[in-house]
Amino acid sequence: LQVVMGKIGFSLILTLALVTLSTSSERKVWGRLGRARGRGAFSGSYLSAAMSPKADRLSSRLHGIQHDASPTEQPTFGFTVKWQFSDSMSVFVGQCFVDDQGEETLQTMWLLRQEVGSPGADWKATRVGTNVFTRIKGQNMGKSMRSDCAW
Amino acid sequence: LQVVMGKIGFSLILTLALVTLSTSSERKVWGRLGRARGRGAFSGSYLSAAMSPKADRLSSRLHGIQHDASPTEQPTFGFTVKWQFSDSMSVFVGQCFVDDQGEETLQTMWLLRQEVGSPGADWKATRVGTNVFTRIKGQNMGKSMRSDCAW
Amino acid sequence: LQVVMGKIGFSLILTLALVTLSTSSERKVWGRLGRARGRGAFSGSYLSAAMSPKADRLSSRLHGIQHDASPTEQPTFGFTVKWQFSDSMSVFVGQCFVDDQGEETLQTMWLLRQEVGSPGADWKATRVGTNVFTRIKGQNMGKSMRSDCAW
Amino acid sequence: LQVVMGKIGFSLILTLALVTLSTSSERKVWGRLGRARGRGAFSGSYLSAAMSPKADRLSSRLHGIQHDASPTEQPTFGFTVKWQFSDSMSVFVGQCFVDDQGEETLQTMWLLRQEVGSPGADWKATRVGTNVFTRIKGQNMGKSMRSDCAW
Repeated sequence: LQVVMGKIGFSLILTLALVTLSTSSERKVWGRLGRARGRGAFSGSYLSAAMSPKADRLSSRLHGIQHDASPTEQPTFGFTVKWQFSDSMSVFVGQCFVDDQGEETLQTMWLLRQEVGSPGADWKATRVGTNVFTRIKGQNMGKSMRSDCAW
Repeated sequence: LQVVMGKIGFSLILTLALVTLSTSSERKVWGRLGRARGRGAFSGSYLSAAMSPKADRLSSRLHGIQHDASPTEQPTFGFTVKWQFSDSMSVFVGQCFVDDQGEETLQTMWLLRQEVGSPGADWKATRVGTNVFTRIKGQNMGKSMRSDCAW
Repeated sequence: LQVVMGKIGFSLILTLALVTLSTSSERKVWGRLGRARGRGAFSGSYLSAAMSPKADRLSSRLHGIQHDASPTEQPTFGFTVKWQFSDSMSVFVGQCFVDDQGEETLQTMWLLRQEVGSPGADWKATRVGTNVFTRIKGQNMGKSMRSDCAW
Repeated sequence: LQVVMGKIGFSLILTLALVTLSTSSERKVWGRLGRARGRGAFSGSYLSAAMSPKADRLSSRLHGIQHDASPTEQPTFGFTVKWQFSDSMSVFVGQCFVDDQGEETLQTMWLLRQEVGSPGADWKATRVGTNVFTRIKGQNMGKSMRSDCAW
């Protein structure tokens, strides 16, 4: 992803697929970055089977920013996902690591906010969790990342 | 903010100031939404004196999305802040509540991600916290919100 | 609370009431520390009206530890609450601050874990939030702390 | 761990080792449950090489509670760790899952609280993260669990 993100600043159309495939939990996460806006900003769409059975048919919009980085750096990034199938919003923040073999890993933590009816219910509105994305190779889906479920 | 956010979808230029004034902790948070991009997306800049002594001179970029909402609803939203004065990134997620007197409150939780040198240091990279923004009245700063510090 | 916690190491029976009274959200949080175990450990019971309508009749057990501290220090602490009315568990971590007037404030963040049926549902099991407790004066309830709701 | 925890209620002396071995990050986490107190409470000590180079020589105290559960259930639990080598406190909350082969996994999320000098610094005091513990077999260390680092 580092290369992809490095190009965001000067490309206009860009496609990225974030994929989660896990037979045990059947989570699938897809993201497509559509149009870079310069200075590290990116936007696109996201699919998650973990959130909803219908999620793989409903793409959700995402907007984010990555820190400017040279090709040898490991930039931090953040993005917001507006879920299409609910009133909830998610934010992800993380860092892209590259190991000695050039393998990229996105380490992320996220908050998932539900819409609640009143401030008195605010205390229970926010969930927290982790997703680690790694590249899937040999697939005809552009830049593909897989998030391994816990087990 | 509800009215402001309701206008995001069809306005091009928009200004919002998020302000934190707390004498005990001297935290100051400023955000300005610059240019709406339609379908709930917004972007702008953010100032925080809590993060850095120089922060009130360095504005940081923000990008986010709010859920579509009618004027009577209380939408969820999320945004990313790329800190100008460090390699860190923050993401905020929350909901805009409006009470019987029309007073708006933004209830948010956030994650702050530091850049770390290697995956082995990833475990300590993410901080979590809360900010509650309320409107400041009678000030010449457009739409102004104040985040009260804990005490 | 500082004084109370400072006594935990050598007292056997101790009573503390953590109280949340908020008309807008009707949250009530009560905790009673029962029996100190030495070296900073404490245990007791906890009542919360935020978690359940029946919560004010069902006390939940809590166990925790505070860091050793001299009377002038502001110790960190943590505790676990086993909710009586559900399969969930909560953990709180925080610090006790004392201002110039001797007023004590407990700044806490917490995680609330639901029991889920399988690892595939683990991603949505954990909520996160904040509670700030301050002392209630002039009440016949021993050591009483109030957690102000967001608004 | 399920069997171990199932025994906590009626055993007096119990030993559990939580082990993290990861060459890439050199994290080591050890916990020993010492003395059960009945009704799900447990206490003991904890070692972590991730927190400090000296951590494997300094054991830290832990206190926690697990929910009562039959042998076929997958209980939630929480515990507090008072770090010996700093003024920080950690709280962990999670659930013990058992797969079809009887393999146990502890899914946990945690908060790590630093001591800060004043309430104005409270906003940056709390870190959040994840640890997944699995059983290590064939080792002479009682009940041993390993926490895999992110990669």
